[in-house]
Amino acid sequence: MHKEILEDIGEKELINRLGKFMPRNQASDDCALIKIRNENLLVNTDSLVENIHFNDITICPKDLGWKAVISNISDLLSSGSKKTIGITINLILPPETEWIWVEKLYKGFNKALKEYGGVILGGDCSKGNEKIISITAFGIQGELELRRNACKPGDIILTTGIHGLSKLGLMIQNKINFDKNLSLNKRLINKAIEHFCRPQVYPNFLENLLKTRPNKKIKRIGCTDSSDGLFQAIEDLAINSNCKAIMNYEKIPKDKNWPKGDIWDEYYFFGGEDYELVFSLPKKWAKNLCKLDKNIYEIGYFSDGEPSIEFKDKNKNQLLKNKPFKHF
Amino acid sequence: MHKEILEDIGEKELINRLGKFMPRNQASDDCALIKIRNENLLVNTDSLVENIHFNDITICPKDLGWKAVISNISDLLSSGSKKTIGITINLILPPETEWIWVEKLYKGFNKALKEYGGVILGGDCSKGNEKIISITAFGIQGELELRRNACKPGDIILTTGIHGLSKLGLMIQNKINFDKNLSLNKRLINKAIEHFCRPQVYPNFLENLLKTRPNKKIKRIGCTDSSDGLFQAIEDLAINSNCKAIMNYEKIPKDKNWPKGDIWDEYYFFGGEDYELVFSLPKKWAKNLCKLDKNIYEIGYFSDGEPSIEFKDKNKNQLLKNKPFKHF
Repeated sequence: MHKEILEDIGEKELINRLGKFMPRNQASDDCALIKIRNENLLVNTDSLVENIHFNDITICPKDLGWKAVISNISDLLSSGSKKTIGITINLILPPETEWIWVEKLYKGFNKALKEYGGVILGGDCSKGNEKIISITAFGIQGELELRRNACKPGDIILTTGIHGLSKLGLMIQNKINFDKNLSLNKRLINKAIEHFCRPQVYPNFLENLLKTRPNKKIKRIGCTDSSDGLFQAIEDLAINSNCKAIMNYEKIPKDKNWPKGDIWDEYYFFGGEDYELVFSLPKKWAKNLCKLDKNIYEIGYFSDGEPSIEFKDKNKNQLLKNKPFKHF
Repeated sequence: MHKEILEDIGEKELINRLGKFMPRNQASDDCALIKIRNENLLVNTDSLVENIHFNDITICPKDLGWKAVISNISDLLSSGSKKTIGITINLILPPETEWIWVEKLYKGFNKALKEYGGVILGGDCSKGNEKIISITAFGIQGELELRRNACKPGDIILTTGIHGLSKLGLMIQNKINFDKNLSLNKRLINKAIEHFCRPQVYPNFLENLLKTRPNKKIKRIGCTDSSDGLFQAIEDLAINSNCKAIMNYEKIPKDKNWPKGDIWDEYYFFGGEDYELVFSLPKKWAKNLCKLDKNIYEIGYFSDGEPSIEFKDKNKNQLLKNKPFKHF
């Protein structure tokens, strides 16, 4: 079968084809126009680089498009965005890229936008040696300002879900033999691949926060997402809010089939790409919320002290020392 | 001397250093916040790829940063942006990139923002094989909507300046021996390098348009910028507005030292990166504007007919056939 590649299509035709994934009024001008009335805009921007953040072995283009959008929407939500307006896309693609790859990527973008709201507002496409997807996403700031620097000593630390699954999914897709003596539960395998390839944004988060707020004067709460791993999320909150996080190892929710052992704890804490929300609330609010939403877990609290993370069970602090150093 | 490269600095420290180029309230959160009141936002996005759009031989990092911002501001202006709010930056850099290169690039970003307004609102930095700078820029829509699809038959076609200089600058920087028998005027050489490395955005454009508008009911005018060359700009206007452009070769302004000949006409029409405005106005408005601003030139008009470009002097139509085909 003939493979249609970008080089054969030419620049003009490519722009035409990509324009078809956008609403008609947005295509083909120098700028995109965003109409908002008396509301503040949240903007997030993220790049995915081939062979760093993705490759053709571990994820198909449609899932990649979905995931690229989810990653941005998760950041918007973790700042308190009540509505996603849309995204602009900067694509860098090698000329030998097949058109069908691009088409599937855009189908993934639009599938996620259809699910969570928003449209493709504009973009740019250039030639390069490796595939790069840069997305800038726009949302409307809701009533609650969720910020990394808004945690307070005494706040309860909460999270919307189980971590490590995406990391496990990546390893499975890469066919890494992490432990030959271990036979992983099949349900866990499927769940891990699903979390890695088709992550979801946590539902009804802002609505439930507002419903359970004990005091309408509280407008700011500490929050980030765990796209860089649970440990990184808590560290970011601790540093930006200048408090000390005390974690309760026993309370941290794990998949019932998640294996035991230090290496599995490492995958759990440092894995990344989980897109869960990690946040802190005053005690009463936290209690109300956990009562309303059974999928939200209390995992520790913030106290006064040097910005850092400690486990309540001192034996577990060894874990934090295993944090992988991130080279650029 | 020790060269400090990104790989040695590490990810965390790099984010810290880049944060220093941003206003304090914007650094270190998941999203940037844009506060606007009852106004519409214009958004533009553009990528510059190493060895496609730039390289270390032809442009220094500070000029590159300047130019990356100008290219976006020019797009905002050509949609009628009355104020630049700021930019988000997605950088892809090889780990062996020197820190000083990045620092100079950011100095260039901020120099342009200081000149034309706006701040760095946020960004992301990832590792990759080649340097890529993706910028998303935000502006406020002014009273006049400048759009590619708003030209009308009978409108005069105007431009804010001389074309081809940036292309000549690029060739000079690349030490291309374009014509051994030709000795270029020294002033032209300097001007060309200046246009290529440190392009400017045309001043007082919107103000002068508003000052000379004969009828306040006209809210939309046809406009784009010539970042892809003068010919491309006029073609984009013609296609999107569904009119035919009749160009007057004799009226098209050239630098007095610009050499004669077909190849020099090609550089002029297809060169690109000139960042002049190319737009159309009703006759009376065009006359008023040219009277007020002596640096704006009438170069043709739009008529009914198939979207296309023709020269009034039919002999010159050969020129348009030499248009280089743009592979992706």
